[in-house]
Amino acid sequence: MPRAIETFRDEFVLEPDGPVYLDGNSLGRLPKGAQRLAAELVNKQWGERLIRGWNDGWYDLPRRLGAKIGQIIGARPGEVVVCDSTSVNLFKLTTAVLRARAPRNEIVTSERNFPSDLYVLDGVGRVRHGEANSSTAVVALTQTDFRTAETIDLVESTGDSHAAGAWALWDLSHSAGAVPIDMTASRAELAVGCTYKYLNGGPGAPAYLYVRREVQALVRSPIQGWFGHGDPFAFSTEYEPAPGAARFLAGTPPVISMALMEPGLDLILEAGMTNIRARSIELTAQLIEQADALGVEVATPRDAARRGSHVSLRHEEAWRITRALIEEHNVIPDFRGPDLIRFGVAPLYNNESDIDLAMASLDHVLATRTYENYPFARLAVP
Amino acid sequence: MPRAIETFRDEFVLEPDGPVYLDGNSLGRLPKGAQRLAAELVNKQWGERLIRGWNDGWYDLPRRLGAKIGQIIGARPGEVVVCDSTSVNLFKLTTAVLRARAPRNEIVTSERNFPSDLYVLDGVGRVRHGEANSSTAVVALTQTDFRTAETIDLVESTGDSHAAGAWALWDLSHSAGAVPIDMTASRAELAVGCTYKYLNGGPGAPAYLYVRREVQALVRSPIQGWFGHGDPFAFSTEYEPAPGAARFLAGTPPVISMALMEPGLDLILEAGMTNIRARSIELTAQLIEQADALGVEVATPRDAARRGSHVSLRHEEAWRITRALIEEHNVIPDFRGPDLIRFGVAPLYNNESDIDLAMASLDHVLATRTYENYPFARLAVP
Repeated sequence: MPRAIETFRDEFVLEPDGPVYLDGNSLGRLPKGAQRLAAELVNKQWGERLIRGWNDGWYDLPRRLGAKIGQIIGARPGEVVVCDSTSVNLFKLTTAVLRARAPRNEIVTSERNFPSDLYVLDGVGRVRHGEANSSTAVVALTQTDFRTAETIDLVESTGDSHAAGAWALWDLSHSAGAVPIDMTASRAELAVGCTYKYLNGGPGAPAYLYVRREVQALVRSPIQGWFGHGDPFAFSTEYEPAPGAARFLAGTPPVISMALMEPGLDLILEAGMTNIRARSIELTAQLIEQADALGVEVATPRDAARRGSHVSLRHEEAWRITRALIEEHNVIPDFRGPDLIRFGVAPLYNNESDIDLAMASLDHVLATRTYENYPFARLAVP
Repeated sequence: MPRAIETFRDEFVLEPDGPVYLDGNSLGRLPKGAQRLAAELVNKQWGERLIRGWNDGWYDLPRRLGAKIGQIIGARPGEVVVCDSTSVNLFKLTTAVLRARAPRNEIVTSERNFPSDLYVLDGVGRVRHGEANSSTAVVALTQTDFRTAETIDLVESTGDSHAAGAWALWDLSHSAGAVPIDMTASRAELAVGCTYKYLNGGPGAPAYLYVRREVQALVRSPIQGWFGHGDPFAFSTEYEPAPGAARFLAGTPPVISMALMEPGLDLILEAGMTNIRARSIELTAQLIEQADALGVEVATPRDAARRGSHVSLRHEEAWRITRALIEEHNVIPDFRGPDLIRFGVAPLYNNESDIDLAMASLDHVLATRTYENYPFARLAVP
């Protein structure tokens, strides 16, 4: 009999009297396995093995962890590597696709994309918001909206891009580990994503990128780093990209931050995305129902098939309400400007009690208007 | 009275019966302070503070640690940030300088530069080995040769580049923390470097970059990441680069790997580069003297003013001798193809006994020809 999804909560560090943490969609909690691994990584691998650590497994981390993320997002072997940040990976892939697909010279995106992704795209090339056409090299979108949690159907949207002859690139940051993804079935060519949200990889843990097997030979990274070289130890003068997605590796990876993501990935793989998704729907439905009872506007789709794993409530005092929840109730959602309170539901460690406590606290803050004790401000954090 | 340089050895984790470690120029040893900090970072900052860690200090890490490296390399405030890898930073800076200096469209370098740097440069633009001329946008060189440890005079070489109207970019990876550097006096515009060698930042710890104050407004990163935005929390649609070198920050940094470098930097600052340099000269001179006594060819300059902090010995059996030193004597130098045995002298923790033991082991390996027990191979690792 498979392990009950509720038991995975025990795999995370939950300090007594700690917060009701509903921000796992920004930074996932610490897996106990990562806590154990940290001591091993620092004291043994760095402290004792020293340079020999590269032969013991560090060198292989980008591919080995990429393979695990590949299982989570429905990729085939050799299609995913872990490296750099989401921004750098987005830069590498979009620059490569513009070069590969000339004379197509345009990137299509949406104003609903992450601001941080839009910044990168604007730096890479000609960007337009709208539909793909015969000038479009790639359509770059985020699958799960960071504001409302609305999800885009990967197969359908990728099909639209392909119909115009454009490639599809997906940012999976708010999806991976929360929403089942089948990159193979999507037929999309490219994807990027971070590992510190639902994958529980740790603060600023390195990102990943996906390059579909059929297009790997067509694209080259603009950053010719030695980790992306086909034979990095030959030190040939010519740069020959590695086979597979590994050709997009750049420089030496931050070993400690990278290795620490593995226990979180293993928990996702053990729990299984089907079970994780069912738990996510259960808990987000509970939250929506309770928010409805409080009369607060729900900005997240009520149709579970169209939402990710956070629930955003709209209120003109969202900023101050968020402050009051954190400061007075030890409930941690986050604020997204101008008017959203965002409750991230991490299916592996959040439970019914978290939702009950958060909504009871919200009820109190709204009923007693304690948020008025905080200065008004308009801020946003991605 | 200042603390004796020899006492800094106690600040590093040195396990009993551990190796004679002469590879600190590839991966520096673990500072005890980093060992302590690792537990705090993982258990408290990630495990308990969670997302609040960004407000507690994570967000400021690239600038704060950059300021410390800035002190080590003679930079002024706002000229150094920690981010990404050396390869990615080299890419960002050289791409930026080519755009800033058009119609100059050429990068000049040397075949003695790191192969990994040469790969990046080849991916960025038109590269030539030789002297700068009126087409040269930037001369990109490594200060301390990774093979021989020969150093280039920063002031003189930068002056040569400037005489041709070119900017100067220095890779300081094999210099910082071992050789006194005064970026301000050098008048060079740009620099990059890694932190895992003499700075003891940890395996694959993030790199740094330097942008001279006078040229900061002239250059923009091709990777428009949100950490390099002037007001990342405003989420304006326009990308406005941050002031200072921080405009070259890209995505979310790998917090654990980045934060762990601080204890190593603090040790360098406490010891002082003058004392570190004196110790380096003392120990490398001892090694050269003992190598001479063994009749082994010394590939490193005998003039201390012209060398960094490693000593390379040339031998046609370098690869097998290195294997024998590691496997039979627990002495760890490294091999650089085709024929160099490289002994890195880390001034903060290596001592006279390390040099004595290493050279006695080399004497034994050469006298008994035990290296012949190993298969012949030609390999290189940067």
